[in-house]
Parts: sequence; C-alpha cells; structure tokens
Amino acid sequence: MSGAVSATASAVALVAGSAQAPPVAAGSGSLPGLDAGLLSPVRAGTPAEAAVCDTAWLQAMLDAEAALARAQATTGTLPASAAQTITAVAHADRFDLTALARGSRLSANPVVGLVHALTALVAAQDPAAAEYVHHGSTSQDILDTAAMLVADRTLRIIRGDLTRVIDALTALALEHRDTPMAGRTLALHAAPTTFGLKAAGWRHLVSDARLRVDRLLDGNLPFSLGGAAGTLAGYLPPGPRPVPVPVPDGLLDRLADAYAGETGLARPVLPWHTLRTPLADLAAALAFTTGALGKIAIDVQSLTRTEVAEVTEPAAAGRGASSAMPHKRNPVLATLIRCAALQVPVIAAGLTQCLVAEDERSAGAWHAEWALLRECLRLAGGAAHTAAELTAGLVVDPARMHTNLHLTGGRIVSERLTRTLAPHLGARTAKDLITRACRTADTTGTPLGTVLAGAPELHGLLDAADLTDLLDPTTYTGAAAALVDTALTTPPPPPRPRSVTGPTP
Amino acid sequence: MSGAVSATASAVALVAGSAQAPPVAAGSGSLPGLDAGLLSPVRAGTPAEAAVCDTAWLQAMLDAEAALARAQATTGTLPASAAQTITAVAHADRFDLTALARGSRLSANPVVGLVHALTALVAAQDPAAAEYVHHGSTSQDILDTAAMLVADRTLRIIRGDLTRVIDALTALALEHRDTPMAGRTLALHAAPTTFGLKAAGWRHLVSDARLRVDRLLDGNLPFSLGGAAGTLAGYLPPGPRPVPVPVPDGLLDRLADAYAGETGLARPVLPWHTLRTPLADLAAALAFTTGALGKIAIDVQSLTRTEVAEVTEPAAAGRGASSAMPHKRNPVLATLIRCAALQVPVIAAGLTQCLVAEDERSAGAWHAEWALLRECLRLAGGAAHTAAELTAGLVVDPARMHTNLHLTGGRIVSERLTRTLAPHLGARTAKDLITRACRTADTTGTPLGTVLAGAPELHGLLDAADLTDLLDPTTYTGAAAALVDTALTTPPPPPRPRSVTGPTP
Amino acid sequence: MSGAVSATASAVALVAGSAQAPPVAAGSGSLPGLDAGLLSPVRAGTPAEAAVCDTAWLQAMLDAEAALARAQATTGTLPASAAQTITAVAHADRFDLTALARGSRLSANPVVGLVHALTALVAAQDPAAAEYVHHGSTSQDILDTAAMLVADRTLRIIRGDLTRVIDALTALALEHRDTPMAGRTLALHAAPTTFGLKAAGWRHLVSDARLRVDRLLDGNLPFSLGGAAGTLAGYLPPGPRPVPVPVPDGLLDRLADAYAGETGLARPVLPWHTLRTPLADLAAALAFTTGALGKIAIDVQSLTRTEVAEVTEPAAAGRGASSAMPHKRNPVLATLIRCAALQVPVIAAGLTQCLVAEDERSAGAWHAEWALLRECLRLAGGAAHTAAELTAGLVVDPARMHTNLHLTGGRIVSERLTRTLAPHLGARTAKDLITRACRTADTTGTPLGTVLAGAPELHGLLDAADLTDLLDPTTYTGAAAALVDTALTTPPPPPRPRSVTGPTP
Amino acid sequence: MSGAVSATASAVALVAGSAQAPPVAAGSGSLPGLDAGLLSPVRAGTPAEAAVCDTAWLQAMLDAEAALARAQATTGTLPASAAQTITAVAHADRFDLTALARGSRLSANPVVGLVHALTALVAAQDPAAAEYVHHGSTSQDILDTAAMLVADRTLRIIRGDLTRVIDALTALALEHRDTPMAGRTLALHAAPTTFGLKAAGWRHLVSDARLRVDRLLDGNLPFSLGGAAGTLAGYLPPGPRPVPVPVPDGLLDRLADAYAGETGLARPVLPWHTLRTPLADLAAALAFTTGALGKIAIDVQSLTRTEVAEVTEPAAAGRGASSAMPHKRNPVLATLIRCAALQVPVIAAGLTQCLVAEDERSAGAWHAEWALLRECLRLAGGAAHTAAELTAGLVVDPARMHTNLHLTGGRIVSERLTRTLAPHLGARTAKDLITRACRTADTTGTPLGTVLAGAPELHGLLDAADLTDLLDPTTYTGAAAALVDTALTTPPPPPRPRSVTGPTP
Repeated sequence: MSGAVSATASAVALVAGSAQAPPVAAGSGSLPGLDAGLLSPVRAGTPAEAAVCDTAWLQAMLDAEAALARAQATTGTLPASAAQTITAVAHADRFDLTALARGSRLSANPVVGLVHALTALVAAQDPAAAEYVHHGSTSQDILDTAAMLVADRTLRIIRGDLTRVIDALTALALEHRDTPMAGRTLALHAAPTTFGLKAAGWRHLVSDARLRVDRLLDGNLPFSLGGAAGTLAGYLPPGPRPVPVPVPDGLLDRLADAYAGETGLARPVLPWHTLRTPLADLAAALAFTTGALGKIAIDVQSLTRTEVAEVTEPAAAGRGASSAMPHKRNPVLATLIRCAALQVPVIAAGLTQCLVAEDERSAGAWHAEWALLRECLRLAGGAAHTAAELTAGLVVDPARMHTNLHLTGGRIVSERLTRTLAPHLGARTAKDLITRACRTADTTGTPLGTVLAGAPELHGLLDAADLTDLLDPTTYTGAAAALVDTALTTPPPPPRPRSVTGPTP
Repeated sequence: MSGAVSATASAVALVAGSAQAPPVAAGSGSLPGLDAGLLSPVRAGTPAEAAVCDTAWLQAMLDAEAALARAQATTGTLPASAAQTITAVAHADRFDLTALARGSRLSANPVVGLVHALTALVAAQDPAAAEYVHHGSTSQDILDTAAMLVADRTLRIIRGDLTRVIDALTALALEHRDTPMAGRTLALHAAPTTFGLKAAGWRHLVSDARLRVDRLLDGNLPFSLGGAAGTLAGYLPPGPRPVPVPVPDGLLDRLADAYAGETGLARPVLPWHTLRTPLADLAAALAFTTGALGKIAIDVQSLTRTEVAEVTEPAAAGRGASSAMPHKRNPVLATLIRCAALQVPVIAAGLTQCLVAEDERSAGAWHAEWALLRECLRLAGGAAHTAAELTAGLVVDPARMHTNLHLTGGRIVSERLTRTLAPHLGARTAKDLITRACRTADTTGTPLGTVLAGAPELHGLLDAADLTDLLDPTTYTGAAAALVDTALTTPPPPPRPRSVTGPTP
Repeated sequence: MSGAVSATASAVALVAGSAQAPPVAAGSGSLPGLDAGLLSPVRAGTPAEAAVCDTAWLQAMLDAEAALARAQATTGTLPASAAQTITAVAHADRFDLTALARGSRLSANPVVGLVHALTALVAAQDPAAAEYVHHGSTSQDILDTAAMLVADRTLRIIRGDLTRVIDALTALALEHRDTPMAGRTLALHAAPTTFGLKAAGWRHLVSDARLRVDRLLDGNLPFSLGGAAGTLAGYLPPGPRPVPVPVPDGLLDRLADAYAGETGLARPVLPWHTLRTPLADLAAALAFTTGALGKIAIDVQSLTRTEVAEVTEPAAAGRGASSAMPHKRNPVLATLIRCAALQVPVIAAGLTQCLVAEDERSAGAWHAEWALLRECLRLAGGAAHTAAELTAGLVVDPARMHTNLHLTGGRIVSERLTRTLAPHLGARTAKDLITRACRTADTTGTPLGTVLAGAPELHGLLDAADLTDLLDPTTYTGAAAALVDTALTTPPPPPRPRSVTGPTP
Repeated sequence: MSGAVSATASAVALVAGSAQAPPVAAGSGSLPGLDAGLLSPVRAGTPAEAAVCDTAWLQAMLDAEAALARAQATTGTLPASAAQTITAVAHADRFDLTALARGSRLSANPVVGLVHALTALVAAQDPAAAEYVHHGSTSQDILDTAAMLVADRTLRIIRGDLTRVIDALTALALEHRDTPMAGRTLALHAAPTTFGLKAAGWRHLVSDARLRVDRLLDGNLPFSLGGAAGTLAGYLPPGPRPVPVPVPDGLLDRLADAYAGETGLARPVLPWHTLRTPLADLAAALAFTTGALGKIAIDVQSLTRTEVAEVTEPAAAGRGASSAMPHKRNPVLATLIRCAALQVPVIAAGLTQCLVAEDERSAGAWHAEWALLRECLRLAGGAAHTAAELTAGLVVDPARMHTNLHLTGGRIVSERLTRTLAPHLGARTAKDLITRACRTADTTGTPLGTVLAGAPELHGLLDAADLTDLLDPTTYTGAAAALVDTALTTPPPPPRPRSVTGPTP
C-alpha cells in the first residue's frame, strides 16, 4: 500500500493535520471486476466479506471436489493416490477465476468448467488420477456442498461477532441497570424505563439471533450428495450386467459418513437438490440476525439525535466526519447496520422463494440462490462486525437521560398519577382528571404539578409532598432492574434439535 | 342458504344436469365489508380463514383482557368477581366490530376503543368491576397476546393439515417405492428416478415444515406483558409514597405464571414490545411451510402437463372446470397452492422487517405486523388445507411414467453408458463418445442403441445384450428405493429447544 | 348503529365525560368473515376500502359481463334484449358472495361459478337471454377486466386524496416559505433549512405520485378480451364449415371499441393474459405513492418527538389517546401512513413477480395477483386518505423551530464558517480549525462563538460582530425560498404517453 | 490469458476432442475481492457488469466531481485552471479502490475519503486548485450524481439489448405468423394459438420494457445538487456580512444548466436528497424489464421440456453441457434469464422502500440504495444480454408443434364444438354434451371424434365431414394472424413525459 492513496490514512492524517505524501496511482488499485465494498461499506474489509468472495466460493467448490475424492477413496471407489493428487491441486490460486466465471454462462453454473479445468490440472500431474475427478458426481452436489462450506465458515465469523455484541451489551446492561431514562412510544415520552433494560433487551434479541445461528451450525448445514437426478446412482457401481442394482452393503453409509468427516458438514437424510430447507433456514437466520442488529441501530439513532443526545457512537479518528460540515460526528456505525437491515429481509425473501423448485433440479430457482445467499451472508456479517464495534464503545450519558426524563414536567408519569387516584375517584374519573390536567398544562404552559396542586378534586387526597414524590419519574421504573437481572441470568436454552433435513442420528 | 345462489351447488348441479331452483337474492349475501375469500380461493371457507378473521382477532383480544383479569385475580390485584364479570361479557358478538375498526383510526390500534366498550359493558353489569378492566395494561400487551393466541390457534389447524399431507405422502412413497420415472433437471430428462423417491422428498420437506410449526407451538409463542413502557410498572402497586418500588415478593412471577396458565401461551423472559422474535419466527415458519407445499404444487403441475400426463389431481364434481373449455380438468389444487407460495415469502419479508422497531414501541413497525401476519397465516393455512386434499387423492399413472421414461430411447441413461465405458476408454473419451452418439441420434433420428451398436470403439466391449440392458432406464434408479426406506423410517428429531424469548425454565 | 357499541362515539364520549347509554350486543356487528379493517386502521372505513372489498370486485365482474354483452349487442353478436336482461340482473346483491367464494375453489377462480349463477338468474327472467351470458368469453377476460375497473375506481379516489394533500402542502410551503429550521442529516443537525422547503419537497414527491396515477388512468388500464387462449377465437363466429376463419370485416375493431366505451377502459393492442404490464404498472405506482406518503410520515414523526416538538398532528376528539397514558397525544396519522408504507413495497414486489407467467395462462401467477393488488390499492388508498387528514391540519411551531435551530450554538453553520475562512486560510486549514473549535466546544461546554473569538488564527479576520452574524443560522438558508417558489410554480408535465400495452391511437 | 485455464476454451476443447495445453496458475486469476460473476453467470462478462463495477462507480464519482468543477468554472465560482486540473486527475486508476472502500466505513460513504484523496492528487499538481475540490458540495450530491451516471450508462446498454431482442422477436413473429401450436392454460392444452402470436406477445412486453427504460433516459435521471442540507447554500457565496442571502441573479440557473451540460443528466426541480423518485423509477423499470424477459424464459422452458420439444435454445459449442449427462443440452440461456427474474423484483422492493427516508438525509435508507441499485442494473443488464442471445437463435420446430397440437384428438377445440352446437341445442346442453363426450374419450380411450360420431344428439346436425373439419385445431386460431399484424405495426407511443422530478421545461 505504500505510495497508494489510503482513504483511511488520509482521513486520519487530514484531521490530525499531519503531513502526507502525495498519493500516486496504485498498481491494481482499481482493477475492473474488483468488488472492494465501495457500495457496501458495512462489509468493506470485514472477514465475512472475504469469506464469501468469488475466490472463497471457488476454493469451497475445490474443497468439495477434493473431499469427495478422499471420501470415495475410503470406500474403495477410487485409489488413495488419485484423491491425494486431486487434493494437492485443488487450490483456487491455480485457476483463472474470470475465465471460469465467464465460462459458466455455457452451462449456467461454474462447476462444469471447473471440472474441466481441474481434470486438466490433475492430468498434468497424474493422468490416471484425472479419471476420478468429479467421480459419479453432478454440478449441484459440488456447488451445494460449497455453499454450505461457505455458509458454515461465514456463520462462525458472525457467531463470534454476535458474542462480542452480547458481551458488550451485558456490560452496558449491568452498568446502567439503574440508569433511568424516558421510555418512548410512538415517538413520544411514554413512561420511565432504564437504559439497563434497553440494553438487556438488545442483548436478548442478539442472543435469539445467535441461537438461530447455532441451530444452523449444529447439524443443519448438510453436504450435498445426490448425483445426476438425486438417486445416488452415480456413486454406485453401474454394474457389468445392469440388473436392478442393490446398494452394495453399507457403501452409501460409509461414503456419507466419510464425506461428512471430510467436509465437517452434516449428513442429510435425503439428497436435497430440490428440497431446499438449508437455504430457507439460512435466509431466515440471516434476516433475523440483521433485523435484530437493526433494532439496536435504530435505537442508537433515536438516542443520538441532536435534541436527545443520550448516547454517542464510539469515537475514532476520522469517524463520522462529513465532507461539508466540520461539526458533525455522524452515527455512522448505526447507519451502516441499519443500511444492512433494510436490505437483508427482502433479499432473504428471494432466497425463500426458491423453495418452489420444480422437478429434480430447477431451471432457475437453484441458480438464483447463489448471489442472494452471498449477499445475505456478507451483509449480516458486516452488520455483526459493525455492531461489535458500536456496542463495545457506545458512550452513554446518564445526565442527559436524567434531563430529558424531566422534560415533560411529570407528564411521563401520568399513568402513575391516574393509578394512584383511581381507587379514590374511580378509574375513569381519575383518567379524565389527569387528561384534562395535562391538556391544561400543555395549553397554558403551567407546570403539571402546579395544575394538579390547584385541582379541587385532589384536595385532601394528595398534599404537596405527595405530588412531588408522584411526579418524580426516577422512582417509577417498575420492574426494570429485576428484569435486567433475570435477562442476564437466564440460562442458555437446552441442546438444539436437528432439522429433519439434518443428519440421521 | 336456502334460496341463495350457491356456486358450489350450482356448479355441481349444472355438470350433473340436474334441475335447480332459480337463485334469488341472498339477504346479506354480498354485505359490504365481507371478505369471503373471493380473491383468495386458496383459503376461502377453510378453518384457517375463520381462525384469523376480524371477529377471531376481536375475540382473542377479549380473551387476553379476560385472562389478564383472571390472572390478576389470582395474585390478589383485583377481586375474583371482577374477573368473572369481565370474562362473562368478553364475547365478540357483544361488540360492534365495524365501529371498533373505524374507531381504531383515532389511536392507530383497536385496543383503546375496545377497552372503552368493554368497560361500558362491564359497568352495565357491575360498576365496581369496570374499575378493573385493562388494569395496569397497555394496548400492545393486549394486541400482542391476541396475535399469539390467533397464531397458536391457526398453527394447530395448519399442523393438522400438514400431518394429513405427510400421511398421504407416506402412502404414496410406499406404494410407488419402485415405480420408475424420468428424473428431470433444467426441464429435460436427466436420469431415471422413482415416484416413490419424489413423494418421499415431498414428505421430507413437509416434515421440515411441521417441525418448524412445532418449534413455535412448543414454547415460542409468548403472551405479552410489559405495561406502558415495558417495565411492568402498571402491574405493580404505584405505592402511597412512591419510593423506588421493590417488586413485591414474587408478584410478577405469580402473575406471569397465572397469565401463562390462563392463555396457554409461553412466558417470555422479557417484555417484547420491540423485541419481535416471535413475529419473525412466525414469518419464517409460514414462508417455509407455504414454500414447501409450493414445491409439491410445481411438481404436480409439471407432471400434469398434457404432454407429460403422469399425475392427475383428485377428481371431484365440478373441480377443474373451465368457463370456456369443456374438455379441461385443470390442476386447480396445485394452482391454488402455488398461488399462495408466490405470495407468502414477500409478505413474510414485510413482517421480518418490522424487527427494526424503534424505541419502546414503534410508530408504525408494530402496526404493520397485524395484517401481514394474518395474511401469512391464512395463506399458509389455505395451502396446507388444499395440499391435504391434493395429496390424499393424487392419481398416479405408472404406465405413463414408463412410457415417458423411454421417450429418449436411452439417452436418459447416458451417464451409465459413460461410466460403464470409462474404465475401458478413459473417462473423457467415454464421455466424448457418448456425447457424439447422442448428437448423431438427435440429428439423424436413428435410435441411440443403433448408433452405439455401430460404433467401432465399442466392438468387443459391449454386445447387443449388454447394450439392451444398459439402455434400460428402469434398472438405473440408483439407491432410490433405499432412500425411500430411510426417509420413511427416520425417527423424529429430538425435543425442540425453546427460543431465548421463550419461557424461563 | 343505535344501541351498538361505537368505539368512536364511546371514545369521544368518555373523554368528554358525557353520559353514555350502556352498549348492547350489535346484531351482525361481529359477523364471521367481516373484514372491517380491525387489523388495518389505515384503511378502516375509507372509500378505498369500500372500493376494493369482495362485493366491489363481484360487482366489477358483473359489470364486465354486462358490458361485454352490451358491446356484443352493438356488433350484432347477440340480441339487444339479451344484453338488457343480463345488465338488469348483474347486481352484486342478487348473488351469494360466500357461496361464490367457496365455489371458486373448484375452478381456482370465481368466474366459473359466477357465470353459472348469473346464467341461472338470467334464465329465470328470459331463457333465451341465458344463452348469451359470458358469450365467447373466458374467466380471465372477466376477472382481468374487473380488476382494471376496480383499479380505475380506486385510483380515482386516491387521486382525489393526493390532490388534497398537494393543496395542503402548497399552503404549508407558502406559509412557511421563510420559516427557518434545522436541517438534519444522519440524525444530527446539519445546516439550516426552512419548513417551507421541506413542505415543498413533500409536495413535489406527492405530485410525482399523482403523475404516476394519472399515467395509469390515462389509457394504461385496459379491458381484457382474449378468449380461451388469447386468440379471440371465442368472439368470432365458429363458422358453418370451419375454414381458417378470416376475421369478419372490422368485427373485432367494433367489438373492442364498444367494449372500451362500455367499460371506460383502454383498448389494448394485444390480449394480455400473460403480458402483465398493467399489473406491474399498478404495483409500481402504488408502491411509489405509499412510499412518497411514508416520507412525509417519517418526517412528521421525527419532528413530533418530545424533544423536538416542532410539529403536532391535527387535534381531534379522542385522537392520539393511549389506553394507559393520559398525557399522550400520539402521532397516529403518521403512524398509520408509515405502517402502510412498510407494507406496500414488498406486497407490490409479489405482484411484479407475477410477470413471469408461463404459457397462455399461468397456473398460479395469475391467481396470486388478485389479493396482492387489492391490498396495495387499499393500503395506498388508506394512506392517501390519512395523509389528506394529516397535512390539512398539521400544526407547525415556528418558535420551537427557532429554538431548536439555535441548540447547537452555531455549530449548525460550521459549513459557513469554514467557507468564509477558506479564502483566507486555505480550505483544509479552515476546515481543520473549525473542526477543532467544535470539538473544543463539545468537550469544554464553552459556546462555539467564545471558542472562536479566542482563536488566534481569526484575529484580524473576523471581529465580534462578524462572528455574531456568521453564527446566526437564520441567515444561512441558501436558496430555500427561491426553491420553494420554483417548486410551486413548475408547470405540470406535458401530456402523458400511453404504454405500448395501452390502446391503439 | 495465455497459459491460464480458460473454462470456456477448455469446455470447447474437450468437447471437440482437441489437444489442450496443461493449465497453469493464473497470476491474479483468483484475486481476493474479485467479483467475476462466478455466482451470477447471467451477467458474467457482460457489458452491464462492467458498467456497474466498483471501478465504474468510482469513475462516475470522479466524473461528478470534475463536472461540478467545470460547471462552477463557467459560473465564475472557481478558476478554469482549477477545473482543468481536477478533471485531469479524476481517473479511477489513480486511486486505491480497496483503501477507499475500507475508508468508507469511517463516514458511511466513500465520498469523504475520495475527496481527501482527490484533493491530495490535485494539490500535488496545483495547490491552488486543491482549494476548489468538492467546492460547496456534499457527499450525497456526488454519490447521487454518480449513481445517475452509472444508471444512464447501463440503461443505454440495456436498451441496445432490448432492441436486439425486439428485432429478433419481430422476425420470429413474422416467420411464424401462421404456425399453429397448442395454447396452454393452467398447464394443459386449452385452445389453438400460433407461435407468431406468442412471439408477438413477447415482443410487446419487451417493447413495454424499452419504453420504461426510454422514459428514464429521457429526462428522468437527474444530477444531484443540494449541498449540506439541500438548500444549495454551499453553492452560493457565504457573504462577507451574512445577511439573508438573495440568490445572485441567475447563478443557480447557470450552475444547474452547466452541470446538466457537463453530466448529460437532467436538471431536477428540487434537490432530491430525500425525494427519491429517480431511484424508485429505476427500481420499477428494472424489475419490469427483468420480469418481462423472465416471461420469455419461462415459456422457452415450458416449450423445451423433453415431452414438448417445440423449441430449442441456439446451439453453441459447449453450451448446455452437463457435468454428468452427455446427452443433455440444457436450456441455459432461459435458465439464466429466469434466475435474474427471480431476484430483481424483491431487490427492487428494497430500493423502493428507501423512499421512506427521514429528514434531509436518511441515516441508512440512502446508504441501502447503492448495492441494491447495482444489483438490479447488472441482473437486468445480464438478462437483456442473454435474451438477445436466446431470441436471436431460438430454434422453432413447427412440425413438433403440429404433432403436439393433435395430441388430444380434438379436445383442444372443445370450445368450438360447444359453440357450434349451442345454437342448436342450447349453450348449457351443448357444453354438457361435449363435457361428457370428452370424459368418455378420457376414460375409454376412444377418440373424441368417434365418441361424437356416435352421439345421438348430433345426428342430423353434424356429418362426418363436419366433424373432421370441426376437430381440426389448425383452423381454430381465431384472430391470431391479425393480432400479429396489428402488434407489429403499432406505432411507437407518443413522446414521453418528464417526471415532475425531471428537469424544468
């Protein structure tokens, strides 16, 4: 990167006022075809982005081919040396990704071309081994297995970030267990709550997301093994005299177990070329995860507003800068997360729709899954990465929360006033009375306490000290503290079940 | 209905040629505001439709209010007699639904008006009891609890229909375990499979759907109890002198357990006014269910095509009739199911997006959930109901399957030919040879067997009898039968975990 | 309504403290199957809701049948008396909607049953006329024509409401042309703007929406006439000796013109059973309309927040009331609009997807359109109706805007400070200087003006008066006033083109 | 590419049996971050893909900055030499794309970093010019203008491909104007049609798509000029003494006209930072375009099915090959198009939702647009490119169409039979008779003609010759030929209107 214009460094440098070498052209800095995340900062440079890029998918396809060969070697279907050679050359950097991608237009998927290229590479080392590349397999077996490998690898990254979010929120919930603030509903102050309860709620939602990720990682990401029409015929001997082939004793079981071992993926009950449970489950989990993080983001934005100013995003050199307005420190992390949350649910819907896949392989519904899945994975991954940054450094201002809590002069506890008076006046009369008092305060500008102090209906019921106490919002936070305690100590859910599409026990 | 025009009866009657009384105007037959399913035949008249109609939601809200009162009575918060009176009048038919719906525009939700009306009804019976209607509660507690009650009731109906589908598919898979048919990929004959394996696959996918429904029914549909800002303050005593209120010993636990008991819903860890896991879970499960059924539908349509004709929908008087073409017997059940499968995923995405709910109650994201949830429930319910009808009577034509399987003159087993020759000729040469032979057969119209019989490369490798055997598609169904056996005997998955948003253990 | 519980009346009554008769059970108040809008307050009781209910669709189908008969009478295809009889009985209240809806499950659409029932009704009056019901037609011709009639009728209602919104916003823009307020970006005060410009922007967006509605109303809602397979064969004589039928001279032209005249719909170039441009156009226009109104709603919510309080929704008895908190006056109109805006885009996507309709009539993609179209129409209609209410009475508080504008002590004009200094110090130095000054003000609490007054770099450049002037946000509203003037006087766009699927010229 | 593994070449080579050099590792062939379209073959290597890649967007942002400088030079705001220098260095290959992308996380958009880097590059050439980089501008002005440039450039590519599709379909419609084939509804043979009418319908739909693209290109893709809060303040002099600034006479008009000239984009009426009509219009047009092409694809798939075999995709070396089944020639072009059509509508819905953008710049809704827009553009572009290939070479088999048309033994003209008999027997009796005859033919296997010949009701009405004529499907194609003629000669629609958000007249 020396000599190249680094936006990050440059931004830091400019703000810090330091000298900076003039930027020069970067060699392959703007290579056509590069997707560096320019249009998707939420995932630019994140581990999830790298885990789902074209090269990562290509490697996963090669991993699937190599694992298949090794698994077949354990069942005696092919020589161990062939499996070794295939494994040895199955490295993405030995292939021309662009040529493969363009060649994929010929067959509507990249595996046909990849098999040709892999076969040629293997043949160059060991012609005999080349006979066994993609042995008995079909494009979808390889691509689906690769998709599950990519999903598995990316979900593990996401899981790590979700855990970091949960840890940060645990700390926030503990620290602010008793920090009162205004609870807001339909954009208005409603009744008091605490920041601890808000943080505990966020944490809870992210725990729900992690649970859904765990459910996938725990046996619901299966390898794909079906053969041309999903009968596994290709993986069985064709027979010298083709009679109705009885499955050789245990061959498929051994193959499946070996493939599960080689890939680390679950063993499915049935070939799932058009039984797309794993994709729909991924869609649901990733939409949920991004949505859950989006809830945090929208709340941070709400609390960041200039007039509210109860929280601030963690500071970092250059972060939140505007190109025009030097005073700004924009809530950029929340913005990035919300941006992801606006995208994933609809993209995930596209994935879910691919359940309606005709015949033994769909002419389109399968092909539509790949880019949609990738986008869901990297947006969710970027959101989780960004949320870890956001929550770890979120700056909370209890004093400002206190100030805002008192903005309405006690209207925020109108429920308590009503409930206190109801036993004496009747519920409806009490509510009418407080409603009218609030309206009087609204229109005259008189403090609510003063209005109430002058209300004849309250004479003998509440004295000045009572009113002062009742109007104090900091003492009307209900069970917030207890709820925080409960939420933080709720044990993890019991062991997860496996999907019916998961492995046999 | 006597005297009214019944389309069903009329259709049957006309087809059967019987006499029919002239139809006359039906009293409220076309009442404005009626949603009889005219635009959504997939759910018209189904139990799921009834379970989610406005009246059902109104009743569920009343059930929530009444259950809350009874639960509060058990904790001593209100007199048992008040709870009894509230329960006694909480019947939907005592309320003016239209007035409530229109009144809901004043508060953006129907609960405010409902509480007024319910209070008035209770007061007419027992003025003292009227003091305790909606005691300490908030609109969202009631509406969310009602939504979960409606979801619970509808999911039980859906579950029953999914079970019927699974049973029917089990029978089909067993009956056709060894019925060979063409496996089709990308619209073309690919390799042989069996109808048993196809049916077993459908069954598997529907089992996955039922598992997701079970997961919801088993502790993931919680009641809602939060109060105005989600702190439960309203459900606790306001105190004579409002000091920081310690939660009275065990009060909230007792209230929550009682409310769980009264509603049959799960106990959530935290109030979930803006932690919308249950809604997102419902969206995912219902989109999955409808998509899974849509897979069956699209396959039935594919197999029903005039040129294919391998399956036919179950016959019923008038079913499948066209308004113009008397020869038609349209696959209407599959059409209805597919129609639902085209709708639910996008609608469910709308629901999932509502996870991004700001503050302690969203000004819109909450309100957007109701109609979306209802539509998902009734379309999924209608699809399940229709799928039960479809699968129970699906007519399968093994003879036609056999005929179609032979349509390509053996091209459908080109994979087997290649694999048989590969050990002798090398994999690439074998594939090239068979590819050329298929192209020759394509362009000359010569049967593939004849082309191969004349291929010099095969002399000495395969004799005529070998070729005949190899070209027989019925003997190349791989492990289809074994897979059917495995799929039908896979034990149910282990007990389901509860969501973090589920009840405390 | 006498004797029934009216939520609206009751809410008003309770708030007003007036006496109220005890509510009693309403006769058919909670009729099963009624969709009164309980789950969709945004459209409850609105004209758009009525225009798209099942009864309205039924009537539109009957209108299509009757118009077809009359059009065929003008071409001599059937006797005028038959057309008169058909027209005379084609009233929705003579049909049993529920029976028709349930009967639609037999044919996957309601037209088959409707034709049977209509034929019976006509036969009862004139058996000869019954021969001509649905003459030469097909279900899709009737249902598609009905859909366009329903769309046309509802769009006219929506157009009226959009015009009301535009008028109200014109008034607001004029009144507040020079009302300064804080411009906000990424949740923070950015630079000054005016409320007039904001209102002019809203107006502009709604004008864009009305333009898209106009485009549909002006020739892009065609009738449907195709016959069984879209060749119009059914509308031509079958011929005594069926030779390749030359189209009788001008018959189809005359029929099409007559049908256009009878229905008021456009004449399409081709039958469009699976060329679904009109539906996709409706989806786009309705999603746009609701989204445009949603922009207003989200801004109103932003400005309504307790801490901001720059606008308030129009007051109405009972409006905005909470079931728990008497002080609340919730922004319910904005909430309802936003709720619609969250739903329509995804539902519209479902409609757009139905473009992919196979063959001459899709087995599902057609059927999925009806409910989706209805939902888009009534949500957009409800949103427009609600927006008319909201904008007509929106209460704007210029004083509060002024107060908020000064909240940042001049940071909001940091751009002006930078630009003023740039010619003297260089752009980067100026920006760095102001950035540091803002940070100093942030961290020390010193007013920005004081910080700047003490900055040595500014000595000799700006005196105290300069600083005071520069820090005044009300004088840095750019071209806001001129933009308002331009926006309000931009002439309407030129005459709209017709879609290719629109009528021939 | 020498030495690298080219999938395309390899596939061709292997099929042709030619020798092939052993593949070796490609230098940067699998560069991390490369998006070569491996997961999206529909656009891999297409011009649209290149037009929307990160580098293209970066160049468009630089074009926007340079055009702005030149426009400002024409209004005297900055020296012409500065504009020249800025233009001279504004080339994407001088920037480090990856660093910019990663730096964009600091400000949630790439413009802040880009401006720093551009300023540094300009300063290295001419320090004085560096003062004028991004002069008075804001990130959104640059990024939105860039988005419109990218959209404009890509739409022109798409338009070219749509025209190629229209031309190919015109030829097909003319050639097959009188080629009869089975019309199919709900998966079954319905009534005869012609392939010419089908092709004319496809053409019509694609013309509708092109019209929508034209509408955008003709004045509805505006540049963005608003400044920090959309008031244009930054583009006006800040003033020595900041009094309410009157807009300098004509300055903004001249700036806007100059910017329109420099960018080739339309001049908007108002700054549109949160008035997102252009994005919603793009979403609608791209979803429509892809959906329209998807209709062709699904029809091609339906007609390609092994059992139907009426059309075949254009042959090309290696195209349609399977990794397992040598006999296959998969309809890959239709598959790719359908795959795009499954994705774009939901992604476009995400874009449409961004209409709900709060304040003067949304904290997320703006940011979510970029990747969604790019994906819509390249999928639509890939689909159009692929459709041009598909339609130009589609192989139609009239003989097979003739054979299939006769498959039902005349049932396909059951409508004609009914209509012929109706005047004699009455419509209902005629329909019942033909219905029963079809069922008899179905269940007994007797040809329909034979059944009818034996029907006593027909004695004296139809003789054998009549029946033969009536049962001939090739003579019952209605107005198909006339419709083709009309469709092909319909004049182009009148000049397009401009959106209200388009330029002032």
